[in-house]
Amino acid sequence: MSAITPERLSLNTATVREQWDLAQCIEGCKRHGFGGIAPWRDKLQEMGVSKAAAAIREAGLSVSGLCRGGWFTDRGAVDQTVIDDNRRAVDEAAEIGADCLVMVVGGLAKDSRDLPAAWRMVEEGLAKTLEYGREVGMKIAIEPLHPMYAADRACVNTMRQALDICDRLGPGIGCAVDVYHVWWDFELEAQLERAGRERIMAFHICDWLVPTRDMLTDRGMMGDGVIDIPRLRGLAEANGFDGLNEVEIFSALDWWTRDADEVMETIVERARTVC
Amino acid sequence: MSAITPERLSLNTATVREQWDLAQCIEGCKRHGFGGIAPWRDKLQEMGVSKAAAAIREAGLSVSGLCRGGWFTDRGAVDQTVIDDNRRAVDEAAEIGADCLVMVVGGLAKDSRDLPAAWRMVEEGLAKTLEYGREVGMKIAIEPLHPMYAADRACVNTMRQALDICDRLGPGIGCAVDVYHVWWDFELEAQLERAGRERIMAFHICDWLVPTRDMLTDRGMMGDGVIDIPRLRGLAEANGFDGLNEVEIFSALDWWTRDADEVMETIVERARTVC
Repeated sequence: MSAITPERLSLNTATVREQWDLAQCIEGCKRHGFGGIAPWRDKLQEMGVSKAAAAIREAGLSVSGLCRGGWFTDRGAVDQTVIDDNRRAVDEAAEIGADCLVMVVGGLAKDSRDLPAAWRMVEEGLAKTLEYGREVGMKIAIEPLHPMYAADRACVNTMRQALDICDRLGPGIGCAVDVYHVWWDFELEAQLERAGRERIMAFHICDWLVPTRDMLTDRGMMGDGVIDIPRLRGLAEANGFDGLNEVEIFSALDWWTRDADEVMETIVERARTVC
Repeated sequence: MSAITPERLSLNTATVREQWDLAQCIEGCKRHGFGGIAPWRDKLQEMGVSKAAAAIREAGLSVSGLCRGGWFTDRGAVDQTVIDDNRRAVDEAAEIGADCLVMVVGGLAKDSRDLPAAWRMVEEGLAKTLEYGREVGMKIAIEPLHPMYAADRACVNTMRQALDICDRLGPGIGCAVDVYHVWWDFELEAQLERAGRERIMAFHICDWLVPTRDMLTDRGMMGDGVIDIPRLRGLAEANGFDGLNEVEIFSALDWWTRDADEVMETIVERARTVC
């Protein structure tokens, strides 16, 4: 397996979200030779979707994904507001030419302990978003989040669970595989094989730190933690994945406090040496 | 499903570990009408195993489990030291008349990212401990820990993974089901059914707080979090579990700072009302 060269990297804008706006991210990707970018919707809307789309195109970047649709449980029901917001996300993803719309599906509804109800809402919301995604030709990528986010962010927490949903919903829906969320899973190898080329829609990298000081914002730079990234990347690629390696690091205590160009340089170096 | 009366409760000594030694825990269980206790080995050894066994017997308490054997990856290999320590744990469990020895299997070996190697060590260690457990008639209960502990505590993280191991190792080994670790799992219902009466060896309760401020020591009192404990207890009981409800709460910020009798009273009250 060959090392990751910069043109095989995509910058998820969350990685430098405290330092750069989207225009700066696009410039930074170009300057550091990244092949792609994956914007978050807040940064995209702040810049303006059309303007951003043009700038990304002009910079020659591909878009490994748009973060993020979903949050189907947020209002306690998959109502028109939720559906409309996800349709807008699909439209935005299409306008910037994203490979897929990444879905963070939502956790328990407010004041609820009813996890089966959350699962039902999520599947209903995914089905409706997928229907629209098919109309406009945008792929829907469920991101199974680490089980520690089941209550408050996403109640789809393993590749098996995500693929069971994909099996039921049919073509056009797959998974965004983030090593941070799935590295621990003894079934990962089998489920990546089950997913196959069509359903491994994105591959996100960062690292799991020991200790992890904050459940949300203490992800590590590749190489600083315990995830065997080469093994996981090898599994994704062995099953046909040939997209970009998207770097998504939430790091309030470390990388968000550094100069963004230093962060980009470190990513390029670590991608070459430890991924 | 009927409410949990005090005699259906067991106190895991970790719940009041900062306040009480084992003798005080035994007295406390008796005073508050608990039916059982589940000591940790450090408290057991501190009191002396024989003396503790006698005191527990005299108090009329049953022992829902001994915490904990395992840590098979701790030395990078399942060497004689690891095996001997687990044999001692089996002996201690037998001497106090525990229902089972609870296994926290260990995470990645020191300085290792090799999760498959950890899985192999764990299975080897479990097999050897089980062999001895069968000799002395002590059941071995794998406790699948929440995936957020995969790196540093236990690389067995779901009921499915634990039961796959049980299937391979045969009779005498099963699971300790702690709602904190497994509540998020979409397969929990199916896997509890698969486990069946013989392999649901313990049932631990506490709650998952939102937010969780510390990954290790911020568990909630039943009712203060988002776990649907009645649903989970119902599933365990529907599959034949009729053991005690063992209360295990790690809470550096809250319950460990309170008067232990207040903690016990709260447990009794919550068991009656929200479990």
